[in-house]
Amino acid sequence: MPTLSLGQAESLVADALTRCRTSRDNAVCVARALVAAEADGLKGHGLTRVPSYAAQARIGKVDGLAVPAIERPRPGAAMIDARNGFAYPALDAAIALLPEMARAAGIAGAAIRRSHHCGAAGHPVERLAEQGLIAVMFANTPAAIAPWGGSIPVFGTNPIAFACPLPGRAPAVIDLALSKVARGNILAAKQKGERIPQGWALDAAGQPTTDPDAALAGTMLPVGDAKGTALALMVELLAAGLTGANFAAEASSFLDAEGPPPGTGQLIIAIDPAAFGGSLARFGVLIASIESQPGARLPGTRRLAARRKAARDGLAVSDALWREIEAL
Amino acid sequence: MPTLSLGQAESLVADALTRCRTSRDNAVCVARALVAAEADGLKGHGLTRVPSYAAQARIGKVDGLAVPAIERPRPGAAMIDARNGFAYPALDAAIALLPEMARAAGIAGAAIRRSHHCGAAGHPVERLAEQGLIAVMFANTPAAIAPWGGSIPVFGTNPIAFACPLPGRAPAVIDLALSKVARGNILAAKQKGERIPQGWALDAAGQPTTDPDAALAGTMLPVGDAKGTALALMVELLAAGLTGANFAAEASSFLDAEGPPPGTGQLIIAIDPAAFGGSLARFGVLIASIESQPGARLPGTRRLAARRKAARDGLAVSDALWREIEAL
Repeated sequence: MPTLSLGQAESLVADALTRCRTSRDNAVCVARALVAAEADGLKGHGLTRVPSYAAQARIGKVDGLAVPAIERPRPGAAMIDARNGFAYPALDAAIALLPEMARAAGIAGAAIRRSHHCGAAGHPVERLAEQGLIAVMFANTPAAIAPWGGSIPVFGTNPIAFACPLPGRAPAVIDLALSKVARGNILAAKQKGERIPQGWALDAAGQPTTDPDAALAGTMLPVGDAKGTALALMVELLAAGLTGANFAAEASSFLDAEGPPPGTGQLIIAIDPAAFGGSLARFGVLIASIESQPGARLPGTRRLAARRKAARDGLAVSDALWREIEAL
Repeated sequence: MPTLSLGQAESLVADALTRCRTSRDNAVCVARALVAAEADGLKGHGLTRVPSYAAQARIGKVDGLAVPAIERPRPGAAMIDARNGFAYPALDAAIALLPEMARAAGIAGAAIRRSHHCGAAGHPVERLAEQGLIAVMFANTPAAIAPWGGSIPVFGTNPIAFACPLPGRAPAVIDLALSKVARGNILAAKQKGERIPQGWALDAAGQPTTDPDAALAGTMLPVGDAKGTALALMVELLAAGLTGANFAAEASSFLDAEGPPPGTGQLIIAIDPAAFGGSLARFGVLIASIESQPGARLPGTRRLAARRKAARDGLAVSDALWREIEAL
């Protein structure tokens, strides 16, 4: 199993994507995002995505040559058309615009449409928090969750990500999908020939199931039951309804090269704490009241530890994935 | 059991509060909010609050004479000091300011500090949505939920409320607290001498309990386990950290007349859909995909039905509560 430094991994991925109808700028941007997710231990958003991204770029389901188009119709509002390219260049555009807009207006939003898989949702908000802003991102994804009581999925797993700057240390980062577990857990159970626990998924008729095949043909259960579907509705309206993106049920898969572009959306809101009475010192008071409790830890702690280890030791890439990326 | 029209109920409550060191304007504002919650079937935020509000106003724990102070430091930012008065006059001030600010800047926020119980969290956002805006409110409440793995509560039940305008009908409204169940359910079990289900609460040592007394001395479990505590942390940082309000663990009870003012906070964000590419027609498409499914319904449907019934038939007030309010 080869071990690569983060820089080596970025070059490997960027070079591979450049050979798949993707501009050098976009390939570098995507490579950085995937390597950062891999380094944080978020393997589902990391290097495993390279082969499917490459296949989608080759066939044009994602336009690797797209340059995001930006409009700023109001002082606190940016509209970014990702033009059916990768999400990361559009997210980078939002991160470049929002700090100045949020400092001027107090709060600002960037709405991204015709977008794609946003990867580790904590990263864009974390980068804004590193610039002293509180940031929230809502993203929709292809259909996975049915409305409470229904059986047809109309919401994605719809992550909510949040980051808040802290005094003298890395920001607090929250990144959570609204399904109870990631779909990957069901795939893993299927591969091992195991049943899944009650409460993870419903079958196609909307009934609880412990059969991974029935679950994959059905819908994911939301975190927190009816409250989770309510939050998924909120995210769908913010990330897709507000931005002019495709709703979950209109979006093709992020994972294969079939069909039209997914065209999903993201909404990022950035807030200047100084404009509303907030202070880093006070944010730190709350964090201390959590970390001082035995057994409690701040969300995101594990990711930071993984990130430090990856920066020191590099990333171990499986032989199979290495060969697959090299072969592109 | 007397039945009152909504107008009669408002007069009854406003008159009672006016006799408890509360200005006429504030008493009318509070009465409207409590009657609207009662009419929506949200009894925990309705007329049952009158005696405890009155007791707090009498003793000065809530300042019934306070007039909210407003600053607008940036085009999209309002800071509202509720001055330890009731929350409702400050919420009304936010609702008066935000539409113009959101239309001009695309998005705007109002941060309320030194506030109190915000009542039915869906109502302020619904009123903004009735003016064509998408709105989100985050509110913190006195300590109830421990960080995941910990045993000391540092988050409130911290409601998230969201409303979105829809074409030709009332807005979609989401209003959810982040505890798995309301504390009132535990009080009800205690009164009936029943045990509570696993999963509602932890005892003071952070262990699961089915004993209502141990639960009341302990903490409420969040909706969705660790993801719920992460959301509660987000709300605490937005509603209190950002606004300069007291954190949950610093806040006195909303329910009794003991101690200093609670001093909690609320953050309301209002978004003009037209500034980001959203349209009522598209919001309606998503709503139709929910309502067309047998068994599925939109969040808030029950509240609207209760509201229609209350407008037609009036509110039934228990004899005990009626006498308690009359006696003020």
